[in-house]
Parts: sequence; C-alpha cells; structure tokens
Amino acid sequence: MSESRRREFNFGAGNPAPEVFPARALGEAAQRVLARSGKELARYPDARGVPELRAIAAERFAHVHGPRPPIDDIVITNGSTQGLQLSAQGLARPGDAVVVEEFTYSGTIRVFRRNGLQLVPVALDDEGMRMDALAEVLERQAALGRTPSFIYTTATYQNPTGTTQPLERRLRLLELARRHRVPIVEDDTYADVSFEPLTEPALYKLAEPGEVLYLSSFSKILGPGVRLGWLMAPQPMLGRLLGWKIDGGTSGLSQMIVAEYFKEQLWEHVEEAALAVKEKRNVLLDALEVEFGDMGMHWTHPDGGLFLWITLPAAVDRQRLQRLATERGIVYATGQAFHALDQDVPYLRLSFGWIAKEDIAEGVRQLAECVRQSLPAVV
Amino acid sequence: MSESRRREFNFGAGNPAPEVFPARALGEAAQRVLARSGKELARYPDARGVPELRAIAAERFAHVHGPRPPIDDIVITNGSTQGLQLSAQGLARPGDAVVVEEFTYSGTIRVFRRNGLQLVPVALDDEGMRMDALAEVLERQAALGRTPSFIYTTATYQNPTGTTQPLERRLRLLELARRHRVPIVEDDTYADVSFEPLTEPALYKLAEPGEVLYLSSFSKILGPGVRLGWLMAPQPMLGRLLGWKIDGGTSGLSQMIVAEYFKEQLWEHVEEAALAVKEKRNVLLDALEVEFGDMGMHWTHPDGGLFLWITLPAAVDRQRLQRLATERGIVYATGQAFHALDQDVPYLRLSFGWIAKEDIAEGVRQLAECVRQSLPAVV
Repeated sequence: MSESRRREFNFGAGNPAPEVFPARALGEAAQRVLARSGKELARYPDARGVPELRAIAAERFAHVHGPRPPIDDIVITNGSTQGLQLSAQGLARPGDAVVVEEFTYSGTIRVFRRNGLQLVPVALDDEGMRMDALAEVLERQAALGRTPSFIYTTATYQNPTGTTQPLERRLRLLELARRHRVPIVEDDTYADVSFEPLTEPALYKLAEPGEVLYLSSFSKILGPGVRLGWLMAPQPMLGRLLGWKIDGGTSGLSQMIVAEYFKEQLWEHVEEAALAVKEKRNVLLDALEVEFGDMGMHWTHPDGGLFLWITLPAAVDRQRLQRLATERGIVYATGQAFHALDQDVPYLRLSFGWIAKEDIAEGVRQLAECVRQSLPAVV
Repeated sequence: MSESRRREFNFGAGNPAPEVFPARALGEAAQRVLARSGKELARYPDARGVPELRAIAAERFAHVHGPRPPIDDIVITNGSTQGLQLSAQGLARPGDAVVVEEFTYSGTIRVFRRNGLQLVPVALDDEGMRMDALAEVLERQAALGRTPSFIYTTATYQNPTGTTQPLERRLRLLELARRHRVPIVEDDTYADVSFEPLTEPALYKLAEPGEVLYLSSFSKILGPGVRLGWLMAPQPMLGRLLGWKIDGGTSGLSQMIVAEYFKEQLWEHVEEAALAVKEKRNVLLDALEVEFGDMGMHWTHPDGGLFLWITLPAAVDRQRLQRLATERGIVYATGQAFHALDQDVPYLRLSFGWIAKEDIAEGVRQLAECVRQSLPAVV
C-alpha cells in the first residue's frame, strides 16, 4: 500500500471538530457529578430526561432564539435521531405522507422510511425550501384528499446544502402550514454552529404553540458519541411523542456528565467549537475557489453548520469519481444519499468539521483531480 | 402529613442495590478513559457498540455459561429494552403472534404491543414456562395455520415470578421450538444476580446457532441509569436486527466508562452486587414468613434476580389494598402489569433490590396490615 493511499481526507460524516473536544474537562465533570449523584444511576432515569440537562437545553434555546421555554416542554433523547423516530411514531402513521426538502439528512430519510412514511419532496434553492414549490405540493396533496402528517424542515444551516431560510420564507412556511393544518417538525440541530451572528429566529419561536415540534442536539457542539439530543413541544403534542418513548430512558450517565460540564462552560465551548469549524470552512472555500474555480461548478457558502453542497458537472461519471476518490482515501457523501426519492443526482456533500485543517487544501486538490479524470475526454 | 406517611417502602421497580453502586470507581474510570480516548466521542459510535464493552459482554457470557462467543455476534443496546424493540422489528411484523410467559416483564409487553404484536400467553408454574402448555399453544397456532414469530422467555430468575426453568424443561423448549420452526428470544437479564451458583445453562448455549436470540443487560449488575444492554446472535439473524438499529448508536460515553470500569472489576462487582441483593431477599423471605405465614398465601423463593411473586387470597379487594398501601408509602407492582392479556389477577410483585435492608421487615409488616384490611369482614 503506497503512502498516498494511506492518507485519509475525511469529508464524510457530520461530526464537529475533534481537536476542541473537551475530554479532560468532561472527565473532571464526570468525577464530580458521580461522586455527588452517582447512586441515582442505580435506578431508571426519568423518561423525559435529567432536569439539569433539560434546563441547559432551555438556556440554549433562550440564548439563541429567546425567550426561555419551560423545561416541562423539553424531553432529552438519544441524539436528535430519536426525536426523528418519535416524530414519525407520534405525529404520523405508516403509509402517511410527510413533506421534506428535496435533499435532506440521510438519517431522517432512513428513519421515516423504516416507519413506513411516504416522503414528498419540495425543491430547494440557495435560501432553503422554496415556498412556491411547497404551496404547490400542499395543493396537490389537498386535491388528492390527503393531508401530510407533517412538514419536516431544517430551516437553519440545512443538511446537506448548508442553506438558511430568510425570515419572510419562514413566515410564509408557517402561513402555508397553518392554512393546510399541517404541523411542522423543525430540525434545528446545526443552529449552534454559527459562523456569523444568527439573525433568523427559529420557526418554533415564530409559531403559535402546537404548530411546531422542535428538535435539537448536543451532538454538533460537543460530539455525537454522547448521544444526546432533545425535543420541545407543548402539550398535547409532547404527550403524543412521549407515549412512544418506551426505551427505559436515555443514558442517565451521559446526561449527568454533559449537564455538569455545560453548567459552567456552555457558551465558552459553543464559541470555541463554532470557531474551529468556521476556520475549516474558510480553508475549504478558498481551496474550492483555487481548484474548482475554472470548472464551471457551483457550491454553497454556508454561514454555519457542518456542510457544503457541490453541484458536479452533469458530464461527470459519478461511479468513476467515487472509485477514484476512494482509492485516494477521499471520503465524501454522494448526492443520492440525501435525495428524498433516492435518485442518483449530480451533487456531493463535503463535511468540514472532522477533517484536520491542514488536510483540507490537499484533499480538495486531489478531489479536483478525480473530478477531472471523471469527465469524458474532449473529442 | 404524619411521620408514617412520609416513610417510603419501595418494592416497585427492578433496580439493583444502590448502596453498592460504584460511584467513585466509575468517576475514576471516566477520567482515565476520557483522557485517553475522549476524542472518539466527536464522531458517531459504531452501531454495534464499543469493542471493549462487547468484549466484556463476551467475557461475562463465557464466565456464566461458557464458551466465549465471538464479539462479532454481540451488539450493545440502549438497555435490554432496545433488544426487545429490535426483536419485535427484526423477527416479527405488525399483526404477528409471539408466544410469551403468561406473566412477563411489563416493559416487554409495552414494547411488543406498541409494535403491533399479538401476545399469546403460556402458563407458568414454580419452574417457569410449562412445556405441556407451550406444546398446546403451538399446536393450536399450527391448527390455525399460523406460526408465531418467536417465543420470548426469561428462563432464569423470571420477571415477575423469580422462577427458573430446570434443564429438562429447557431441552424440551428447544425441541418444541425446533419442531415448529419458531426462534426463541431468551431474556437473560437477571442471570448475574445469582444467590446460588447458577447450574442451568442458557438456552443460547444449548441451542444450534440461529435458534436463539440472546438478550442481556448491564442494568441489573450496575444500574439501569447507564442504559446499556446487549444482544447476541450469529448471522444472518443478527443482521435482521441490526437493520433496525438506526438510532445513530448507543451512548459512546456510557459504553466507554462502563467498559473501563468493568475491565478491572467485573466479577468483584457482580459478586458484591448479588450478595447485597441476596441479603435483602433473605430478610424479605423471613419477614413474609412472620407476617404472612398464617394467611394461607403463597410466594416464590427465587434463587436469583430481583423479584418475588405473591399470590393474594382471592377475597382481597385489590383496589382497596392498593389505596391503603399507597397511603402508607408502600410501592409494589400489581399482577395486572405483568399479565400478557392485561387481566386483573390476584398477584403482586415485590422487588427487593432498591429498598434499604432496614426497611424491609417494617414494610412487609405494614403491607400485611393492608392485606388484612382489604379482606372482607368475617360474617
């Protein structure tokens, strides 16, 4: 195996920057909180989660979007993935239609499909879900005598595209949902990874109680390995979801430690984590400009989150590209993984949280070579 | 509020003894392993679990039942509850029949029902599931042209009854399952809480590969708050379950800490934990003899596990009993909670892991008073 094959350029999964992971501080928090409250772990955790962590979730919402929600509306989950699972179970039934962005998180697609839901895609542009397209989809469903069970959207730093819906689009989304009496599931998992001050309010904040279910996570500001997310809704919506949370609870050990750590260091760590990812985004954007600038390609310029979405030239042989990239240790996610109807589309997603900053430029240079080698020879 | 009302006698949930919970050692393990491998938590955990904890699961099976299974057959879950969930999804479809003990874990009933499964009960006696009754149930299903998706059994220290199937019954169970081509889901969650050397081998050990799915847990030897269980099966059975494990993984933080702790102290802690519970069982059996001996009641004498099952006199007004007990701060679980068909039956389950040893005799004395006060006056 040659040296160049062994080097890895991992633009794959949506992970935060490992170099700022607070391993030592978390270890100290663990020792403190276990000495104080460890015996609590000898019984089942509250299905809604540990109060201290729910309070931090409330504080985080208040800080980013304000005002502070009551912790009674908040439930800790096993990552936001469990929030998706509970949405599918509590708000829909197998066979139901749910509206999603045309390109959306592959984990969401997997969970919704496994629950027997039919995904109805709505086109995106550089400002997220298109409202003319949504209006059309909802009208068409209504004409068929159907009401989708919910609209799932990542309005801020969308996965995979990195786009953010501006305020007027959010207001229009709420108006359409209200008119058609369809609840919204807002996935706000990436909102804390902000490169500029976040100016768009959450849909949850703009909505009337019960119109929006809010999903969030500690995965993107701390790490997916702690498997802690949270969801928020008032009653009776919350109860519809909680009835499906029959897992015996989310790890009390994880919750306890993360709450103890964030109690002191939430915003300090969030800022440090976002800054580390922002610097990588900057390096990535520069590298794309250098390597792809003359190839007539398009990519998004995210203000936050972990992802950037590249439109490939239609003529690229995507199987060949994937093969060449894999040979060089370049990992990215294909457009198809995010397509609501599983179509092979000319896009790829680069994640820039996990990869070392020093590897980005070289990874993009090699990726560009692979793209060129995947284009048909000029005849 | 009077003093006697404020005291609590908690014979409720199936928790281990909190006084032996190793809070300090776990805190030290956390600090060690986070310093060494904390950054791993900045990415998604392997869906199958952390190798170190899977190795401990293998070691535990080898020690209790032998021989050592390959860790490729082991998957870490969010408590054994997720193992139940994956069984329902991977081995059955909504509407399918599954065979269960007439009285079985309420969490199992909840999970199977939520997955749309139809529970077919088999009678129990002091040696667990009755094989004549199972044979009859399977014949009846066959006559209806149906094959149950699986047989769920807790062969060792059954929940709620505390009974254990002797070897010949286990062999007969395997024979019946084989003849009817029905897989077995063996819930061995309690096998580590042993008061005598465990002489009955696991069904998994007696079976051919693929006949039994094995579920276990770290909840009963450590604490349910860590939310760590595990399941074991060879391929292709394991793959059928793993396809449904789309939760983004089980807490890597929990797994890492528990593996680091058990690496050194598994059997030392298991022995200490079982001994603490055994002493409470002894106190409970003595107290029952003293308080209930003259009332013509029957209770099981478990050799392990966390539960004891009491048959109430049929004439007891069970609603009244529950009310009186609650007034005195006595918590127990009703027979109905464990009945596969949700029938109100004259039993109650006492858990003896959580309650303080000093409170047991007084709790039983007060419970006996409540039972007497719930009997009709002699006319």
